[in-house]
Amino acid sequence: MTTTLRRVPAAEFARVQEQISDPYERTRAVSALSRINTLYMIARAGSGHLGSSFSAADIVSHLHLHEMRRPFEEDGDVYFSSKGHDAPGLYATLIGLGALEESLVHGLRRIDGLPGHPDVHTPHMPFNTGSLGMGISKAKGLILADRLHGRSRRVFVLTGDGELQEGQNWEALAGAVRHSMRELTVVVDHNKIQSDTWVADVSDLGDLEAKFRSFGWGTLRCDGNDPAELDAVFRKRAEGFPDGPVAIIADTVKGAGCDTFAATTSLRDGEWMYRFHSGAPSAEDRESAYAELLLVVDGLLSRNGLDPLRVETVQITAPPAAQVAAQRLPQVYGEALVDLARRDERVVALDADLVLDTGLIPFSEQFPDRFFEFGIAEQDMVSAAGGLAAGGLLPFVHSFSCFLHARPNEQIYNNATEGRRVVYTGSLAGLLPAAPGHSHQAVRDVSAVGAVPDLLVLEPANAAGVRAAVQFCATATQSVYLRLVSAPVPLEADALPEAPLKVGRGRVVREGARTVVIGSGPVVLAQLLAAARTLAAEGVDLTVVELPWLNRVDPQWLAALAARADTLTVVENQYTQGGQADTVARALLELDAPRTPRFRGIGLTEVPRCGTEAEALAAHGLDAASLAAALRP
Amino acid sequence: MTTTLRRVPAAEFARVQEQISDPYERTRAVSALSRINTLYMIARAGSGHLGSSFSAADIVSHLHLHEMRRPFEEDGDVYFSSKGHDAPGLYATLIGLGALEESLVHGLRRIDGLPGHPDVHTPHMPFNTGSLGMGISKAKGLILADRLHGRSRRVFVLTGDGELQEGQNWEALAGAVRHSMRELTVVVDHNKIQSDTWVADVSDLGDLEAKFRSFGWGTLRCDGNDPAELDAVFRKRAEGFPDGPVAIIADTVKGAGCDTFAATTSLRDGEWMYRFHSGAPSAEDRESAYAELLLVVDGLLSRNGLDPLRVETVQITAPPAAQVAAQRLPQVYGEALVDLARRDERVVALDADLVLDTGLIPFSEQFPDRFFEFGIAEQDMVSAAGGLAAGGLLPFVHSFSCFLHARPNEQIYNNATEGRRVVYTGSLAGLLPAAPGHSHQAVRDVSAVGAVPDLLVLEPANAAGVRAAVQFCATATQSVYLRLVSAPVPLEADALPEAPLKVGRGRVVREGARTVVIGSGPVVLAQLLAAARTLAAEGVDLTVVELPWLNRVDPQWLAALAARADTLTVVENQYTQGGQADTVARALLELDAPRTPRFRGIGLTEVPRCGTEAEALAAHGLDAASLAAALRP
Repeated sequence: MTTTLRRVPAAEFARVQEQISDPYERTRAVSALSRINTLYMIARAGSGHLGSSFSAADIVSHLHLHEMRRPFEEDGDVYFSSKGHDAPGLYATLIGLGALEESLVHGLRRIDGLPGHPDVHTPHMPFNTGSLGMGISKAKGLILADRLHGRSRRVFVLTGDGELQEGQNWEALAGAVRHSMRELTVVVDHNKIQSDTWVADVSDLGDLEAKFRSFGWGTLRCDGNDPAELDAVFRKRAEGFPDGPVAIIADTVKGAGCDTFAATTSLRDGEWMYRFHSGAPSAEDRESAYAELLLVVDGLLSRNGLDPLRVETVQITAPPAAQVAAQRLPQVYGEALVDLARRDERVVALDADLVLDTGLIPFSEQFPDRFFEFGIAEQDMVSAAGGLAAGGLLPFVHSFSCFLHARPNEQIYNNATEGRRVVYTGSLAGLLPAAPGHSHQAVRDVSAVGAVPDLLVLEPANAAGVRAAVQFCATATQSVYLRLVSAPVPLEADALPEAPLKVGRGRVVREGARTVVIGSGPVVLAQLLAAARTLAAEGVDLTVVELPWLNRVDPQWLAALAARADTLTVVENQYTQGGQADTVARALLELDAPRTPRFRGIGLTEVPRCGTEAEALAAHGLDAASLAAALRP
Repeated sequence: MTTTLRRVPAAEFARVQEQISDPYERTRAVSALSRINTLYMIARAGSGHLGSSFSAADIVSHLHLHEMRRPFEEDGDVYFSSKGHDAPGLYATLIGLGALEESLVHGLRRIDGLPGHPDVHTPHMPFNTGSLGMGISKAKGLILADRLHGRSRRVFVLTGDGELQEGQNWEALAGAVRHSMRELTVVVDHNKIQSDTWVADVSDLGDLEAKFRSFGWGTLRCDGNDPAELDAVFRKRAEGFPDGPVAIIADTVKGAGCDTFAATTSLRDGEWMYRFHSGAPSAEDRESAYAELLLVVDGLLSRNGLDPLRVETVQITAPPAAQVAAQRLPQVYGEALVDLARRDERVVALDADLVLDTGLIPFSEQFPDRFFEFGIAEQDMVSAAGGLAAGGLLPFVHSFSCFLHARPNEQIYNNATEGRRVVYTGSLAGLLPAAPGHSHQAVRDVSAVGAVPDLLVLEPANAAGVRAAVQFCATATQSVYLRLVSAPVPLEADALPEAPLKVGRGRVVREGARTVVIGSGPVVLAQLLAAARTLAAEGVDLTVVELPWLNRVDPQWLAALAARADTLTVVENQYTQGGQADTVARALLELDAPRTPRFRGIGLTEVPRCGTEAEALAAHGLDAASLAAALRP
């Protein structure tokens, strides 16, 4: 299918900058052009954070056009977004201002292009963000370094409002006061909506200004979508608070700039979920937004005496759709959890602002009393799960796996030392989707929680596996870290029949000869089955084994498998260190068998790349072709 | 050496409770008796948190005597300390009130006794604390569970004031307001001193009441060492805030109850460090405190018409002192860091309120501009280190290893994805000292950070090893997690000569035959060398190898070692899963050698026990005798 998209050439950014003399009108123009290109980039990529890119667009334009000193030079002021979700908007502006190569406008979320969240390998991205709540701390470190070097750059940090639910923000405030950080300004993009819905409904922030003030910060407030107010507020910041850090609460609208995306106009009657947080808009929404955005720009150009905007049309041909299961695993999981909760009154669910992405909407609707929304506060959520377990319940705790294994790592361990039974369900596990970039690719989860006592790490391969896993969690004596892949499930992984779960035991999913390969989850198993087809054509008969337990292996089961193997390879959808390959290798050696198959582990050896599924799999040697090459005797 | 200690029998607690009619006087009496027994327990154990046990004593007594409903019954109100450092004081009171067996008074920090920090296996300890900042979250979970069960227990959580520097506290507040948690009261033991010194000098809390109020909590304030004020404040809590959570800021004095320990009287002119945070007092201080405490009690009993206190004397004979090195590793480390900083201007040091225990006092004094104190805010510290590295510096980040690998786990990874070079120095690593209990025993650090890209985990065995490690950190291209044992270094580990550090390579520290054992660090190597002596007497000639790299092994080096081994055992001062044994096993298999030695890994398989060094080593099979038995062919 071919789609026609539109984008604004950099020359048009140059034209409006040169020819619009009024500074506020210039800001509006750059913001409006950036929004058009943001839409282009996200539509082309198929995903991206549209709502917060639009809400922050005027702040980004104002800072770069008027406030920052030498923004793109080594000794110039520094800007970055702590949440990083608004990267497409920032990229669009930087491309428009000539600070990033224009060709990158076509490369959002593609390999060697512009990552889904900021990465230091892209010019003018001082930090990797996307993991929330780290920005103020990082800015403080940079300022302390600058002071030691005798530099006096100012640092502007954009945070989300939902992001302020993370405790690290509040940890970070005192130090900025202690060090009288006049260089530091935090701008809160207060668009009132976090990933799924209104911040006030998730975990109300209360009086934000009072909070910052109580931590000793100066505070100011303005309309963050109004260039004149932005200009005034930064003047007040400089004049009113010359000696310390300031938080500017910028009231914005998520999706600001056109009615189609604006939170104030896009939510239909009775709707609670904002639809433009991270996915690409529908064709209808996209076209209506394009029309609105172009109308805004042309009105702006016209009233400033300029010719209409020249847009470039770009034809995009979508690759043929892959054969995938109808449902993704988090959705199946959510339904299974509802079924379980009907039978087991102990089951409660805890969420950290990802009710949609973790499949929890049915649970939250059917068991509102047993559903607890914590907001973006994973540490609080996990410790509270410990409290719920202490109170006799069986908590299922949810977040993206990239956050769930790491942010509350000490809290998970603390629960384990109490012997509490808790189920940690981390969705978005593994390398895919690779489009959001490494902050969202959970490829270190197995190692980071694998040694927690009495915690089993379990990765189901398909819908049947998810249902069995949920049932297992209900009756196990251990805690479980459920590693859920959110990427679409390839049909051949989906088709694998249900199998009973026995801790540490796997099953053969493709009978073959003495070249044996172990994998788990839909991504690896599908690539392995495809690799097996390739190899079969060459006369190599691969035995493919699913071992869904990532930190346990049953010695007896392994001994039987090893006895039928000349070579045994473990392929992992995560870093090859500290995961299943290590566990299997150790167990294999400790079998103390007279004969041990040749062993090899394959997995990630470097920070995961951002890109399409195919790009990322190939880049890390986990696509069927690379695996076939690696497994070829 | 024999020491005479004094303790108050439970019968005396019963007498004052029965015979003192005035409720405030009764509280004072129970607090005073508890303080005497706290001193006894800590003096006997040789360590324990005296200052905060004393500051909180009146709060604990008041709650249990007057405020809590059925405090020791299943459906009664719940009290726990979130910081958990004040455990000795709580134990003393619970023993005095008959809620814990009296014999436990002799068992602080001993195996099967009372752990250094609360553990759920002790009666009336609802949660494991000692890891800071989790208490409010846990209380919330318990209350949510109670509500589902139709229960209405009240929950009282004591927090430290320094503890409030942890972001998780601030994460936790919103949910309590959202759920109108009238059941929840937080009492801040505001003794103004955190581990080393004044909170205001570490990371000033500012206006605590304003902070809690800005998060929507009710606040009250009182003298937390005055039973009458405590009584009044809890009345106000019930009457004034019937519908939501309340924080009571209880102004206390660290070490309250006698001049010797009170922060207000014990700091000498010009002293900044409070001396009674966690160690046992000197004999002189102990005796003067005993005298003061007994005087207080006898005055109290006399004015209430009671006979003087009957104390029991207990003779304690200290075991002979072990042969250990003059300096502990953190002290050597601190000096080496100063040396390095003199030569390398990029070196900066970051601390999280453990300037004494991480050896940083010399650095902080000699390089005040390059020393940054973050308070108990590990996430903030680690992200700020990323900022400092981005600014061209080489940050050395410090905390206890138990906290450093876990609390800022995601932040460490984020720094790694940016390719920042940071040195993370975790002291108090491993099983020993075992007296503080599992919250402070870092035995999961290797696995939890071992898979972070380009991060080497390195554990030096003695002073020479520490100096070499610091020098390595200065010139390496990777980041380093330096695992520092704080327990005394046994002389035979201390005596091992300096050896050059090459990544993944170890060295033979005891030449022997084909029974080869790998270990690292002073604890394991000393036990292995002792085990080797035992085995030598039986004609078994052990080869002992130091491999200080815990997540790397050089294949060539390993191949040479394997060639001279019939059996190869890896012994670890941490969980046996996810650590050095896994790394070595995997590498050994992937050597694909014609012959592989028999392999075994030995390490912790369960949550570490609290106790003396000897008790803990034996309990986990890591003492020389157990290792000799395990290694005997």
